[in-house]
Amino acid sequence: MKNALIVGATGFGGLGLIDILTKHPGIRISGLAALDHGIKISDMYPHLRGICDLYVKSPEDINTDNTDIVFLATPDQVGMNLVHKFYDRKIPVIDFSGDFRFHSLDDYKTYARNKGMSESHSSPELLEESVYGLPEKNFNRILTAPVIGNPGCFAMAMILALLPAAENGLLKGSTLICDGKTGVSGAGINPGKSNSYPLRYENSNTYREGKHQHLVEVENVINYSLKNKSEQYKIFFVPQIVPMNRGILMTVYADIDPKFDTKTINEFYKEYYTKSPFVHISESSPNTSEVRGTNRCCIKVLVDNRTGKLLVISALDNLLKGQSGNAVQNANIRLGMDQDAGLNLNPIYP
Amino acid sequence: MKNALIVGATGFGGLGLIDILTKHPGIRISGLAALDHGIKISDMYPHLRGICDLYVKSPEDINTDNTDIVFLATPDQVGMNLVHKFYDRKIPVIDFSGDFRFHSLDDYKTYARNKGMSESHSSPELLEESVYGLPEKNFNRILTAPVIGNPGCFAMAMILALLPAAENGLLKGSTLICDGKTGVSGAGINPGKSNSYPLRYENSNTYREGKHQHLVEVENVINYSLKNKSEQYKIFFVPQIVPMNRGILMTVYADIDPKFDTKTINEFYKEYYTKSPFVHISESSPNTSEVRGTNRCCIKVLVDNRTGKLLVISALDNLLKGQSGNAVQNANIRLGMDQDAGLNLNPIYP
Amino acid sequence: MKNALIVGATGFGGLGLIDILTKHPGIRISGLAALDHGIKISDMYPHLRGICDLYVKSPEDINTDNTDIVFLATPDQVGMNLVHKFYDRKIPVIDFSGDFRFHSLDDYKTYARNKGMSESHSSPELLEESVYGLPEKNFNRILTAPVIGNPGCFAMAMILALLPAAENGLLKGSTLICDGKTGVSGAGINPGKSNSYPLRYENSNTYREGKHQHLVEVENVINYSLKNKSEQYKIFFVPQIVPMNRGILMTVYADIDPKFDTKTINEFYKEYYTKSPFVHISESSPNTSEVRGTNRCCIKVLVDNRTGKLLVISALDNLLKGQSGNAVQNANIRLGMDQDAGLNLNPIYP
Amino acid sequence: MKNALIVGATGFGGLGLIDILTKHPGIRISGLAALDHGIKISDMYPHLRGICDLYVKSPEDINTDNTDIVFLATPDQVGMNLVHKFYDRKIPVIDFSGDFRFHSLDDYKTYARNKGMSESHSSPELLEESVYGLPEKNFNRILTAPVIGNPGCFAMAMILALLPAAENGLLKGSTLICDGKTGVSGAGINPGKSNSYPLRYENSNTYREGKHQHLVEVENVINYSLKNKSEQYKIFFVPQIVPMNRGILMTVYADIDPKFDTKTINEFYKEYYTKSPFVHISESSPNTSEVRGTNRCCIKVLVDNRTGKLLVISALDNLLKGQSGNAVQNANIRLGMDQDAGLNLNPIYP
Repeated sequence: MKNALIVGATGFGGLGLIDILTKHPGIRISGLAALDHGIKISDMYPHLRGICDLYVKSPEDINTDNTDIVFLATPDQVGMNLVHKFYDRKIPVIDFSGDFRFHSLDDYKTYARNKGMSESHSSPELLEESVYGLPEKNFNRILTAPVIGNPGCFAMAMILALLPAAENGLLKGSTLICDGKTGVSGAGINPGKSNSYPLRYENSNTYREGKHQHLVEVENVINYSLKNKSEQYKIFFVPQIVPMNRGILMTVYADIDPKFDTKTINEFYKEYYTKSPFVHISESSPNTSEVRGTNRCCIKVLVDNRTGKLLVISALDNLLKGQSGNAVQNANIRLGMDQDAGLNLNPIYP
Repeated sequence: MKNALIVGATGFGGLGLIDILTKHPGIRISGLAALDHGIKISDMYPHLRGICDLYVKSPEDINTDNTDIVFLATPDQVGMNLVHKFYDRKIPVIDFSGDFRFHSLDDYKTYARNKGMSESHSSPELLEESVYGLPEKNFNRILTAPVIGNPGCFAMAMILALLPAAENGLLKGSTLICDGKTGVSGAGINPGKSNSYPLRYENSNTYREGKHQHLVEVENVINYSLKNKSEQYKIFFVPQIVPMNRGILMTVYADIDPKFDTKTINEFYKEYYTKSPFVHISESSPNTSEVRGTNRCCIKVLVDNRTGKLLVISALDNLLKGQSGNAVQNANIRLGMDQDAGLNLNPIYP
Repeated sequence: MKNALIVGATGFGGLGLIDILTKHPGIRISGLAALDHGIKISDMYPHLRGICDLYVKSPEDINTDNTDIVFLATPDQVGMNLVHKFYDRKIPVIDFSGDFRFHSLDDYKTYARNKGMSESHSSPELLEESVYGLPEKNFNRILTAPVIGNPGCFAMAMILALLPAAENGLLKGSTLICDGKTGVSGAGINPGKSNSYPLRYENSNTYREGKHQHLVEVENVINYSLKNKSEQYKIFFVPQIVPMNRGILMTVYADIDPKFDTKTINEFYKEYYTKSPFVHISESSPNTSEVRGTNRCCIKVLVDNRTGKLLVISALDNLLKGQSGNAVQNANIRLGMDQDAGLNLNPIYP
Repeated sequence: MKNALIVGATGFGGLGLIDILTKHPGIRISGLAALDHGIKISDMYPHLRGICDLYVKSPEDINTDNTDIVFLATPDQVGMNLVHKFYDRKIPVIDFSGDFRFHSLDDYKTYARNKGMSESHSSPELLEESVYGLPEKNFNRILTAPVIGNPGCFAMAMILALLPAAENGLLKGSTLICDGKTGVSGAGINPGKSNSYPLRYENSNTYREGKHQHLVEVENVINYSLKNKSEQYKIFFVPQIVPMNRGILMTVYADIDPKFDTKTINEFYKEYYTKSPFVHISESSPNTSEVRGTNRCCIKVLVDNRTGKLLVISALDNLLKGQSGNAVQNANIRLGMDQDAGLNLNPIYP
């Protein structure tokens, strides 16, 4: 049994990890830390009574003895300051923010600028060693990486929808349109306008059109894998919030070589994800309710003959495959376990 | 005071008309008819007690005396069989279905085929005289048309988003992508899987991708207004249901001539809708909650310099500007009143 | 046309007033004030564009010239400090908080204690002159009162359900059970745990059982109206939040003299509210959707023969009859207009 | 590994069983049957792909060989006709309807009458042998019963809230008030007005006040366990629907002997449920979100000193402890396993 430490235990990321790890066959929680510390997690969250009754400690009081892996389920620019405590002791780190999703400082700066944050990074020397925590692409590098940057939820939905087409050179044109719909939990646990019930119920809207910070990591991954480096794809990503709590529904549009039809594309996708246990290529239109409570991503591809467009639809649970579930998948790989250990979760339906 | 007859009074279309007309300064309800007849509308819908307590009659018992206008808030292929009763008495008809949205039988057949219905039309001789009930475009023809085909809700959101760009020749390329999100009330009042609470709460999904019946009317209107007829636009429309009741959020993507920027496009749109009291060009991202309970359509335009794409976002209340509100706007025009009579509705917020 | 000033214009109470008064035939908004001031209300709330574009001023910059009435849509213990500015100029004040709901300082202290606030009142000399703004009971006193304390939303639902039975001496026993379900908007506009979407969706719970601050005003009103003063009723009120935005559903249980049946009680209620245009006694079970967007309160009474219990069910929109709608009703009365001026609102349905 | 057959596999009850049993350590699904048969369950419900891909057979084609237990997740008056097929082969039956919840035909008739059904029972000879499937009370009888009548969801919430107080003689007076709020999934999977999204969103209402069919089973259980048989309790149950999908929140009111305070009652409850792993006595107010996706029932007790009333609040997931979860708990007991096998489910939160 491996020991995992969760920093940022009291946000949605931390709660997701607690949920999964309390049922995990190979990883147990050895400690919880968060800024709002000093009481039992189950006194703060009564739904955890009898499931996890550990005290939440201050991040300053973290004891790294016997720790096999650490999850930094913390906001941007927290992990970059905590990481050396673990890195220096050779404890692998999985960070939930954008801090370690980029190999170059320039990319990080673009990300930070898009998000309206300071562009300075306090541990830039670790960027090159860190890996983007996308098991469907970077499995081998995750096996040994000291720091794993867990992808953004929207980015995950875009990348899984695009990778097989991009890597196989099926796409024409340089701009890929990503129309992304997320549930409200994507805004995190801290109360504000973006997760206010009266403002979000019965309301859908776009925001930060073309400027969402997840853009950078998607373009990075998609273009990194291009055989022909001269053709760099650009993403036009329009994020939207719809009145549900969990779930992302992504519709991706691209121009496609007219020689391909739905059946062929479908086979490319099935083939590409043949070893990816959580990506399901579907012939029916994915519903976010199908993946609710699971680590799955359901994908449907369709070539519209009338217009010559490829449509790829992906659906995932933003708190699982879009966050904690994928983080545990990374941890499983990094710790040498089956990547699906503790993650064969049934959807909650209805 | 003009007298209006409502056929199909017990569905969402009929209820919307009752709501508006019971407060209308120039039109009163002279009769209600529906298949589920025989009791007072307020016994079926207690929220109408004291607001509208008329009996619902059988469509067969309709008395057209003193009727100035009739609303056929009925499903597809009902109005085509009822229409002559009114047409022959020179009573203007506003039909809510696809029956009179097309000038040619061919277009109707495509519509019907997309919807999986019989392609036969029982009153084809009226198609040419009928007008597509889009006040923002067909105001003058609505003034005298004997039959007005009220647009589909999704079509309205697409057309209002596209018209100014299409008519001004701002667009490049032939395919326009329309990613449409609707609330559940779009599925109507009859219980089924598409409006089941357990199946729709916390669920978003696409359906009939590229094959929704509203496609035809949008392509018709957009291409009809093209100066250069050789460039026919095609719409790739991907409808989606999100877990709200009212509201449509449409995101439209097109290639744009690089000489245009957001500011210029914005001015084109403002200019185009300068006489359209219900279309608001907005610099903030439209929220469906802004238009909930109103006849408004809020539109934002944005040119994404990175990718050379035009994004147009439109938001409307599918039961009002997308249905009954627009129908009353048509009736106002047809009856010679101000087009906004009875329609200056405040949004219900929050 | 009378001039109304709204202080606290940017909360749900203020927004509700703006909604009603922009359509009111006899009252216009002459000024808006709030702590978050300095911009147009429609820049803060885009849904108000073209409906109300007034600047929001600082409460300190209020100009009382030509003001006929002032609404203090402010939290507890704000109005008590602002009131003299208006009282001294003989401008009638309608306060939305608990500041002026009580004639005695002792009652106010109990209220404040239940709510966990300071018990000191800065304008106690006005308590005796002020009136509890319940038109169904205090119509005549509202006609001339200098200060009107607008009731709490839950209190309104309890009082309207109980008054006819209590005043007619129909009840046995001393404890009345009030089981109250409210939508999330009752928690106001400021973001916090109690109106967080992720925490409130798919969640129902009780809170402050038997200790909610609205208890005091209900017991006051019910017992004030008792013919036999020796029998003071006590309320056991259990407030609950359910995952909707607007609406209160109250179920009230009491022991009843066995000689009464449903029919008789129903007649007592109809008779009692015969001059109250907004209280509807219903034979069908009230739905909160029936009253959504209206100033109505729907009430059903039922005597359960098996158990000898009286059940009274009341439903209202907490932001209208439970707040702004009732405030305007009070203003109408105070300004000598018809009490329903501007308040004949149709429900938004569905 | 024991083999379980699920009849009525395509409703919410069946889906709940499939969810639990596909992860159960000791029971596997050996067959699925339902009226809508002929395809794979995962073709009907794509969320089950890779989780359960069994064909759904006609109930007539059921093969009982090697079946260790059968779940009849069927509506009222279906199980009574199917039961002998299993009973005669000594296969234990767990029925989800009211068919086997009563020992006497008279009680069944009252139940059927309240529900507006035919009062005739086709297997009345099995009523006496059957047991009410309430593990917290009837554990020993469930161990060997040939037929187990799984309780109604509302009944479960009432009974668990009342049992300790009733059995310990803590209550005064004869009427217990049960104010029950349920999510929409309680109305089942078949589309109708009671589970229509447009009619249920933003809507709360009471229904069948004092006449809900679950009354009978609650009174049966509560009074059966009374030491003093002369004091029969009556339940005044007022069911309500609130706009959530899963969850029941029950508030129970009773008169209580003034010598008891909250602390004492709390201890009675803790003691009573000391061997019941799924009943949690809580000092914080139960939230339905705490039990969402679990087999738990959270209960809080409170004595209101001002009014002399006992309040008991219970919260459970109507599809789990209120249906399939409890059914599996019964199956575990009946098959000699730990009662919590396969049922240590974490809540889905948020």
